[in-house]
Amino acid sequence: MRYKLTIEYDGTKYAGWQRQEERIISVQSALEEAIFGFCQHNVTLYAAGRTDSGVHAYGQVAHVDLNLARVYTVFDIQKAINAHLKKHKISVIKCEEADENFHARFSAKNKLYTYIILNRSSPPTLDQHRVWHVRRELDVPAMQAASKHFLGTHDFTSFRDSQCQAKSPIKTLHRFDIVREQERIFIHVEAQSFLHHQVRNMVGSLALVGHGKWTGENIRAALDAKDRAHAGPTAPASGLYLVRVDY
Amino acid sequence: MRYKLTIEYDGTKYAGWQRQEERIISVQSALEEAIFGFCQHNVTLYAAGRTDSGVHAYGQVAHVDLNLARVYTVFDIQKAINAHLKKHKISVIKCEEADENFHARFSAKNKLYTYIILNRSSPPTLDQHRVWHVRRELDVPAMQAASKHFLGTHDFTSFRDSQCQAKSPIKTLHRFDIVREQERIFIHVEAQSFLHHQVRNMVGSLALVGHGKWTGENIRAALDAKDRAHAGPTAPASGLYLVRVDY
Repeated sequence: MRYKLTIEYDGTKYAGWQRQEERIISVQSALEEAIFGFCQHNVTLYAAGRTDSGVHAYGQVAHVDLNLARVYTVFDIQKAINAHLKKHKISVIKCEEADENFHARFSAKNKLYTYIILNRSSPPTLDQHRVWHVRRELDVPAMQAASKHFLGTHDFTSFRDSQCQAKSPIKTLHRFDIVREQERIFIHVEAQSFLHHQVRNMVGSLALVGHGKWTGENIRAALDAKDRAHAGPTAPASGLYLVRVDY
Repeated sequence: MRYKLTIEYDGTKYAGWQRQEERIISVQSALEEAIFGFCQHNVTLYAAGRTDSGVHAYGQVAHVDLNLARVYTVFDIQKAINAHLKKHKISVIKCEEADENFHARFSAKNKLYTYIILNRSSPPTLDQHRVWHVRRELDVPAMQAASKHFLGTHDFTSFRDSQCQAKSPIKTLHRFDIVREQERIFIHVEAQSFLHHQVRNMVGSLALVGHGKWTGENIRAALDAKDRAHAGPTAPASGLYLVRVDY
């Protein structure tokens, strides 16, 4: 039986979603170990988005096939996995039965990522490791105007990581909203799928606009250049959240 | 010269606001040490609210008298203190010159405390130590109705800690709002001043209402009893935030 899990995590101390050969544990490994602890069989989880180290999730989605020795409700399964995650900052917030054709990544129709900037001179306390701390005031209206160049279908070669495995650099963005709430700037981006580091690279370039070093024209030119060297730096992982995946 | 400092902190690992003889450092001690580090003289800070261990602040206010060897802008002072707070989850978010009669506690006209309950079965991740995790669904409309008994002027003896030092148990509450936003319940309470543990004791009793064990009548009767033994348990410190102090 295939199950769809909705997962929340604080990504700070993990090697990202994907299982690694490294010493630092990944979110995937922690979950696979918890499932082993519950039903004593080795499983592989498939996630909607393979978040990087330090990136957080309020609504990551993964699927897994379980051969359970007896009947469990989905709520029993959720509780059992969480019981084996006590030492982790990872929580299964929903468990649902899924169709055998359901695939967390390939069935996804839309993903919402939110990036949070704490824009003030004093350092974060409650938000440490959960925001990008930018001391100098950012020009949000300028960033909003410039961000519109990202909307629609483009070749995002300039905004993909050199290690990106995707076959095509063409992606379609449905939403790019930037909202200031006092000291915090929330950047909401939606698309069916993203390239590796795409959101963080777009945010890094928009910060140049916010600092007055770039204009919207530079964003346009960076897209047109189709060369990573023509875009701005990668914004830190700590500000990024995978908020929701729609199917 | 007297200065008014607005301070944010993650109270999880501190012994509360007040300087203690204990091994665990308090927020006050950390700030006094940082000020010593900056200007090499011993000072005493006076805070608007002496928060308990584990209680957080987005807008604690304290005053301090500084004899500075040379002229600093308030922004220089803020930056210098923060530079000495690097290892702490404490941040001075504003520094202002204050009148010599200004007293952070006695001049306060109003304080806003917010208490956050995470009301869902699965454990918190990003919110660990920042909420009270209540697994069973709480009846928020019942809690809202019952909370109205707290509004206005009452003898809050049943809701004060046995160690409370206040001369009078009479307090006046101007606001008691309870708002659910999906899995989170926000409780906003405003008064000029509060008794020790008052907010946490009121929230603990309202949780009994939310669980259907108590009605609004029990809240009324607990107030009338003027006896701590007649009210509910104390809600955990982790959910409480001192959000704002008005002068």
